[in-house]
Amino acid sequence: MNPEDKGRRKILKGALGTGVLAAGAATAPNLLFPALAQGERLVPFTDPQSESFQWNPIQPNTTHWQDTRAITNYFTDNDDFYLVQHYGQPEIDNDSWRLKVTGMVDNELEFSLQELMGRNIIEQQVGFECGGSSQRLLHGLMGNANWRGAALNSILEEAGIQEGAKEIVFFGSDISTEEIRGREVEKAFARSLSINDAMRAENMLAFEMNGEPLPHYHGKPVRLLVPGWYGVANVKWLTQIHVQNTRYMGRFMGRDYVTLKRTDIGGTERWVENSVTAMNLKSAIVRVIESGGQYRVQGFVLNDGTALESVEVKVDDGPWERAQMNPRNTKYSWKLFSYNWDNPSSGEHTLVSRVTDVNGNVQLRQDQLPEKVSFWEDFGQFERKVRI
Amino acid sequence: MNPEDKGRRKILKGALGTGVLAAGAATAPNLLFPALAQGERLVPFTDPQSESFQWNPIQPNTTHWQDTRAITNYFTDNDDFYLVQHYGQPEIDNDSWRLKVTGMVDNELEFSLQELMGRNIIEQQVGFECGGSSQRLLHGLMGNANWRGAALNSILEEAGIQEGAKEIVFFGSDISTEEIRGREVEKAFARSLSINDAMRAENMLAFEMNGEPLPHYHGKPVRLLVPGWYGVANVKWLTQIHVQNTRYMGRFMGRDYVTLKRTDIGGTERWVENSVTAMNLKSAIVRVIESGGQYRVQGFVLNDGTALESVEVKVDDGPWERAQMNPRNTKYSWKLFSYNWDNPSSGEHTLVSRVTDVNGNVQLRQDQLPEKVSFWEDFGQFERKVRI
Repeated sequence: MNPEDKGRRKILKGALGTGVLAAGAATAPNLLFPALAQGERLVPFTDPQSESFQWNPIQPNTTHWQDTRAITNYFTDNDDFYLVQHYGQPEIDNDSWRLKVTGMVDNELEFSLQELMGRNIIEQQVGFECGGSSQRLLHGLMGNANWRGAALNSILEEAGIQEGAKEIVFFGSDISTEEIRGREVEKAFARSLSINDAMRAENMLAFEMNGEPLPHYHGKPVRLLVPGWYGVANVKWLTQIHVQNTRYMGRFMGRDYVTLKRTDIGGTERWVENSVTAMNLKSAIVRVIESGGQYRVQGFVLNDGTALESVEVKVDDGPWERAQMNPRNTKYSWKLFSYNWDNPSSGEHTLVSRVTDVNGNVQLRQDQLPEKVSFWEDFGQFERKVRI
Repeated sequence: MNPEDKGRRKILKGALGTGVLAAGAATAPNLLFPALAQGERLVPFTDPQSESFQWNPIQPNTTHWQDTRAITNYFTDNDDFYLVQHYGQPEIDNDSWRLKVTGMVDNELEFSLQELMGRNIIEQQVGFECGGSSQRLLHGLMGNANWRGAALNSILEEAGIQEGAKEIVFFGSDISTEEIRGREVEKAFARSLSINDAMRAENMLAFEMNGEPLPHYHGKPVRLLVPGWYGVANVKWLTQIHVQNTRYMGRFMGRDYVTLKRTDIGGTERWVENSVTAMNLKSAIVRVIESGGQYRVQGFVLNDGTALESVEVKVDDGPWERAQMNPRNTKYSWKLFSYNWDNPSSGEHTLVSRVTDVNGNVQLRQDQLPEKVSFWEDFGQFERKVRI
């Protein structure tokens, strides 16, 4: 690594570009998802998902989701950012923690936390959701934060990936027993990336979340972050990075986080299974605010970082109408939007949003998407109901 | 594709180089594994695998293995080359058969058999075994043949792989029902390769086997061949090649043909699962011939195509002694060897071989290999017993 890069703090936000809509979007404060002001009120949703929705604060070793109707900050509180763990939440001592880089590298490396903090540091806004986030939980397995950490590609360049290497496996410290082919074995949580995917400039070994040291629940002291991908890629409690010439096929690569769907494969209808990787283009409405008879419909977008063309909102059988984007949105953050709903009539209404990216990909209705058996990757349009 | 390349018949055998031992090896006819001559006899093995071994000729929809003790030809007869199929052996009509190339390509393509035969044709000797070939079957899930077919990389270049593509999925016409997450779905046999692995110059769409049109059982009219890999990569009854930006995780990628072993991962003992891909370095003794009181010990090597340094044979507690290599061996063929066993004493003897490649990889004893749960990739040293 170039010594001049050491410890240099880069803000990737600018370098990588923001969504095309950001520059021209209105900067009205109502776009910033603040807490409700005096005279503002949330209009309750009347759809079944909202009526059956339950929420709890974080509890150890438990899945946690946020109440998306209560989003009031651009950054999710660390105590409310979603949590899914499969093998518990190991207690790690920062002083004795080490990160090893091993396998098909010219130089095997070992970092203390202090040493890692002295490498090429980047800072980014990254929002993501669990591959299993769903309408049932109002898409609450989600969060958006400001992260700081070491650039993964610098670390890999320092190690020197050897000819013939194909994959990089990221092992967490969270370990449990799996039964595989009749044998109980201890396995660490692990995910792999191809060399190309691993070398993306955005990938980081994050040790800071919203200005705090990475909290215990979120993988203290260091987790991998792969911006634009579903959360399963972001291995927590990271302890080893291993370069190899074969494909890693542990449970979270080969068996879970694999989407089974029936779809058109080059003109042939086939059932296929694909790994859960980059986030699909998705929007959802999360709150409706009334203030002095004026209504605003607000929501979020998550995707793989491709710039957006538009977010539109439709009321009942009306036309699709453009929403405004929050000017704070960045390439890999969630993208918040707001739509002014003029003069709604009294009674129940159906609201839905759809997002389109600059490549012409459009968020489809559930019934337009391929038939799917596994529950991962729930990104169809999400109809909400409110009563005015 | 360069039009001058169309239909040009390339012999890759020369271009890719043969094993380093081939040039200097003796050319004695006894190295060629002929049928037994007058006065020659096979010395029967007395090891338990040999005594319990059973063999049957090919039967429809059944696994077939050869009797490795009966290898008498450098090329395996098409009727004796091993067969493993998971979803039956579909009947394909050559005239209506088409091969489609679809997905993230500039030009979707469709070939009739005649059209494919007019592309860039290569011819190679390729030997391989099933990932599940084992000592129990005397490693009989194996074969070596001369293949002719279209170079895969030419076809992919003609289609034009697009930016962002990550994988190529090869679908067979053999289809069956799988139960996945409680749902019965029809799935075609399929395997995927990374773009880099798929673009290797050796890969071919084979339509000829030992001078005959590819036989029904072996995937008529066209199968994929990935020289140096275990047989599961060589998709039979090939019908579609699909380029995509996600990892294909069907049963034969993510769940089966995945080796679970406990091994040293950069200084940490871990249970890991890896995809069955390139063949491990392996040798085995398959016959002992006696003629006029002279004994010869013969066997084969399979590997990923890396040149070999040596094959050695050990008798009882004696030293490792070099065997001679068959001069016909080529880079991706099996590599046959022969060792002159001088003056064996009467009684039972233990014979074992080991192979070393030019990178210093040595075939280990079973008890030196990592602990393994799944049965795929059985490549330890194989002790045989004979009574003189």
